[in-house]
Amino acid sequence: MPTINIQNFITDIADIVGPKNVLNEAGAMAEFLEERRGNYTSDADAVVLPANSTEVASVVKLCAARHMPIVPQGGNTGLCGGAVSQHGQIVLNLKRLNRITDIDPVNDTMTVEAGCILADIQQAATEADRYFPLSLGAEGSCQIGGNLSTNAGGTNVLRYGNVREQVLGLQAVLPDGQIWSDLNELRKNNTGYDLRNLLVGSEGTLGIITAAVLKLVPQPRQAETAFVALKDLDSCLTLLTAARIDSGGTLSSFELIPRFGIELAEKYVPGCRRPLSTTSDWHIIMVYSSTASGSDLRATLESTLENALDKAIITDAVISASETQTAQIWKIREGLVEAQPMAGERYTYDVSVKISQVPEFIERAGALAQSRMAGIRPYAFGHVGDGNIHLSLFQPDDIASTAFQARLPEFDELIFDLVHELGGSFSAEHGVGILKLDEMSSYKDPAGLSVMRAIKQAIDPTNIMNPGKVLP
Amino acid sequence: MPTINIQNFITDIADIVGPKNVLNEAGAMAEFLEERRGNYTSDADAVVLPANSTEVASVVKLCAARHMPIVPQGGNTGLCGGAVSQHGQIVLNLKRLNRITDIDPVNDTMTVEAGCILADIQQAATEADRYFPLSLGAEGSCQIGGNLSTNAGGTNVLRYGNVREQVLGLQAVLPDGQIWSDLNELRKNNTGYDLRNLLVGSEGTLGIITAAVLKLVPQPRQAETAFVALKDLDSCLTLLTAARIDSGGTLSSFELIPRFGIELAEKYVPGCRRPLSTTSDWHIIMVYSSTASGSDLRATLESTLENALDKAIITDAVISASETQTAQIWKIREGLVEAQPMAGERYTYDVSVKISQVPEFIERAGALAQSRMAGIRPYAFGHVGDGNIHLSLFQPDDIASTAFQARLPEFDELIFDLVHELGGSFSAEHGVGILKLDEMSSYKDPAGLSVMRAIKQAIDPTNIMNPGKVLP
Repeated sequence: MPTINIQNFITDIADIVGPKNVLNEAGAMAEFLEERRGNYTSDADAVVLPANSTEVASVVKLCAARHMPIVPQGGNTGLCGGAVSQHGQIVLNLKRLNRITDIDPVNDTMTVEAGCILADIQQAATEADRYFPLSLGAEGSCQIGGNLSTNAGGTNVLRYGNVREQVLGLQAVLPDGQIWSDLNELRKNNTGYDLRNLLVGSEGTLGIITAAVLKLVPQPRQAETAFVALKDLDSCLTLLTAARIDSGGTLSSFELIPRFGIELAEKYVPGCRRPLSTTSDWHIIMVYSSTASGSDLRATLESTLENALDKAIITDAVISASETQTAQIWKIREGLVEAQPMAGERYTYDVSVKISQVPEFIERAGALAQSRMAGIRPYAFGHVGDGNIHLSLFQPDDIASTAFQARLPEFDELIFDLVHELGGSFSAEHGVGILKLDEMSSYKDPAGLSVMRAIKQAIDPTNIMNPGKVLP
Repeated sequence: MPTINIQNFITDIADIVGPKNVLNEAGAMAEFLEERRGNYTSDADAVVLPANSTEVASVVKLCAARHMPIVPQGGNTGLCGGAVSQHGQIVLNLKRLNRITDIDPVNDTMTVEAGCILADIQQAATEADRYFPLSLGAEGSCQIGGNLSTNAGGTNVLRYGNVREQVLGLQAVLPDGQIWSDLNELRKNNTGYDLRNLLVGSEGTLGIITAAVLKLVPQPRQAETAFVALKDLDSCLTLLTAARIDSGGTLSSFELIPRFGIELAEKYVPGCRRPLSTTSDWHIIMVYSSTASGSDLRATLESTLENALDKAIITDAVISASETQTAQIWKIREGLVEAQPMAGERYTYDVSVKISQVPEFIERAGALAQSRMAGIRPYAFGHVGDGNIHLSLFQPDDIASTAFQARLPEFDELIFDLVHELGGSFSAEHGVGILKLDEMSSYKDPAGLSVMRAIKQAIDPTNIMNPGKVLP
C-alpha cells in the first residue's frame, strides 16, 4: 500500500470541506480524541468536519482512493471505544450535519441529519406535541448517528424498544463513497434486504449514517411512579408479570434497586433519601404512563400494588404524590450510579439474560465472585423489564488497587462464562467497539461470525471503514 | 457445471431424510407445486421434507456439493411467487419442523420450529394466557418460517408491528450447510451485525430459517369496536391522529372502508349488512383494546367519537354493543375482500405511502386511472394506520377481459410511478418474490441494490438458495 502524503491529502480534503473544517493540530484535534473516561488514548492524522452528506461522500471517495482509514464519530460518548482512532487514520465527525429537516405530526415522523444532538431531537418532538422516546445519560451531547450506529438502549426500552425500533428510513455513505439513500417514512415496506437494520448497530464499520427518519409517538400526559420494597429478589418477576398484564401496556419503567445501592447513594450523593423506611434487600421503581388524559392510571397502579401486598410479593410501597416525591424516587436511581466511583474500584458489566433468569444470574454471579475473592461486594441494578443488568463488583477493603485491577481478566471470564451459560449477552446495550473483541471470538456462534466477516468484506473490501472495530 | 444424476441425488437425499420424505412423482409433488391462485406454474426435480435442522443442514450441504438449487417453502401461501420452483431445482418444505419447543410466560417468549402453522402458535400462546399478535388471512395454513422470511404484516401491525418486531432469536441453515444458531431470548443484545433482521424478509435467498424465538404479549381482555362514517377522505387523518393520542396506546385497528366496498359486500357476500344507515363515501372500523381489566375503554372511545362529531370530522358512528354486532362490523371488512373476484376483472396493488399522504394517493391514483381508461372503477381499502393501501382497479363494463388484461403493464407503471413520486413502497407487506423484480430495478436506490447483490454474493456465492427471487 502506498504511503500517503499527509499534506497533499489534507489540502485535497480542504478543497472539499473548506480549510477550517480539517483539523490536524494536536490542540484543535484534542476534543475529538479525548475518550471521556480516559480509558483509551486516541491519535489521528486529521479530524474532518463535513457539512452535509455530499461532502461526506466526497471525503470517503478520496479516502478510498488513498487507502486512508476512517473513524466515523458522533458525540464521542460511546463506552466501548468504537470512536477511538489512531495514527494513520482520520476521524470524520458528523457534528455539522445537525439539521432537523422535517417533522410530520400526522405521519408521526421526524427526519434528521446524523449529527443532531439527541436532546435537541427530543425538544423538537416536544414542540410538535410529540415524543421521541430514546433517552439516556449522554443525551445532552450524544448524536443520533452514534445512537443509531450503536443501537442505543436507555431508560425507555421496556415500552418503546431500542433505537432500532424507532427508525424507519436511513441515508448512509458506503465505504466506496456512494450515497445509499432510503429516507422512507413508511411503516410497511417489504422490498429486499433490510439494509437499515444492518447499518444500525454496525458501529460505523459498514458505512457512515448521515440522516434518518425517526418514529414519533404521542406525548405521555400522565405518569404514576411507585417505589416498592420486594419480599425477595425472585419476587421481582411475579411483580413484573402482574404489572405487564394489569397496566394495559402503560408500564414504562421497571428498575431494580438494591439496598447496597441506596446506602451508597445516601452516603455519597447529597439529597438522596430513601422513599420508604422499611429495610428490604431489593426494591423496584415502577412507572405507569399514558398518553390518554381520562384514564384511571393511579387506581390501576394501586390495584397492582394491593394485589402484590395481599400475595406477600412486596412488603411495602409508596406511590408518589407529587412531582417532588417523583424526583426524589428517581434521584435514588441516579444516585446509585453517581455514587459508584466514590465507593472504590470495581469491575463493571453491562449484560443481559432472559427476564425469567435475572434473579438466578444476580445470585449466581455474586456467589461466584465471592468464591473467587473474599470480601468482594457484588452490586446489581438495572432494567429488569429488559433483562438488562448492570453488575458491579467492588474491591474488598483488604486488597490493593493494583492487585484488584490485575485480576480483571479472570473476573471478566467468570461473569461472561456465566452469562453465556444462561444464553445471555456479554453486551446488552453498549456494543462491541474495541472493548469486547475477545468476547466476540469466545462467545458468538462461529457460523454467524463468518457471515459477519463475509458481509464486511463484501461491503468494505479494502477495510477503510472503522477498521478493527466490532469484528475480531 | 456438471449435470446432476437425479436418481443418485435422490438416493443420497433419501439417506438423509428417509425415502418417504423425498417426493419425485408428479402426483406426490403436486400439492407443493400448486400456486393457490394459479398465477404460476411450478415444477421441481424433487420435494424434500426434512425432520429437523440437522437434516436441513445435511440436505443443503449435499445440494451445495452437487450445485442443486433449493427453493425453501413453508405453507406456500405467498402472493409474489417466492416459493415457486422450476425444473432443475428442489423444493425444501419445512412442514415437518413443527414443534413448539418452549414457552416462557415470564420472559414472554415462545421458541418454535419454522414449520409451525401460525394458527397453532396463536393457540399455544392463548393456552399459556398470552397473545401472539401476528394475524393474517392465511393463518390456518401458513408457516411461521414463511411469515418470517417474508416479514409478514397482517391486521395487527398498527399496534404490534410487522413480524420483524415480534422475533428475538433465529436459527437458520446457511447456503453452505452451516447452521447459524442464535436462538436468544433477549430484549437487548448489541453484539455485532443484525443477522436476524437480514434473514427476516430475505425470502429464503440467504438461508433457510429453521427456528425462531417469538415475543409474546399479554392477552387483550377487552376491546371496543366502532364503525364510523367520515365526512370525507381527508378526515381519516384527523380522526387517526386524535385516536392515537386519546387511546393511550390502545388503538389496535384503523381500517378504511369505501362505500363501493360495502355495496359489493352486500351484493355478493351473504349476511353482509351495513352497520350504519347513513350514506358516506368513506368509513373507518376502529378498535381500542386493552390487556387491563379495569380500564375505561368504552368511555375513552366514546369521547374520541363525540369530539370528532363536534368537529364535524365524522357524520355518524356506532360502537358495537355485542359480540354479534362486532362480528357484523368485521364481516363487512372481510366481505369487501371476498366480493372482489365476483365483481369482475381487476388490477390489484399492495402499496404503502406515508400516513399523511394516504388520501392524496387514493385520490390521485383513482383520477389517473380514470384518465387513462374511461369507466375503470378504483377501489381502495386497507390499513390506513400503517399507510398500507390495497388498491383495486375494476374492469369497465364495456372493455373485454383480454383487452383489459393486456393493459396491466401500463397501469402497473402508472400506479407504481405515483407511489414512487410520493416516496412510497411498491410492496408494502407481500414482498418481492418473482412478481416485483422489475419494480426492484426501476424504483430501488441503485447503491442499495448493489449492496444487496454484494451481500447475496458473499453469503451464497454459488447462488443455490432460492435463485432468481428478490434481486433482479
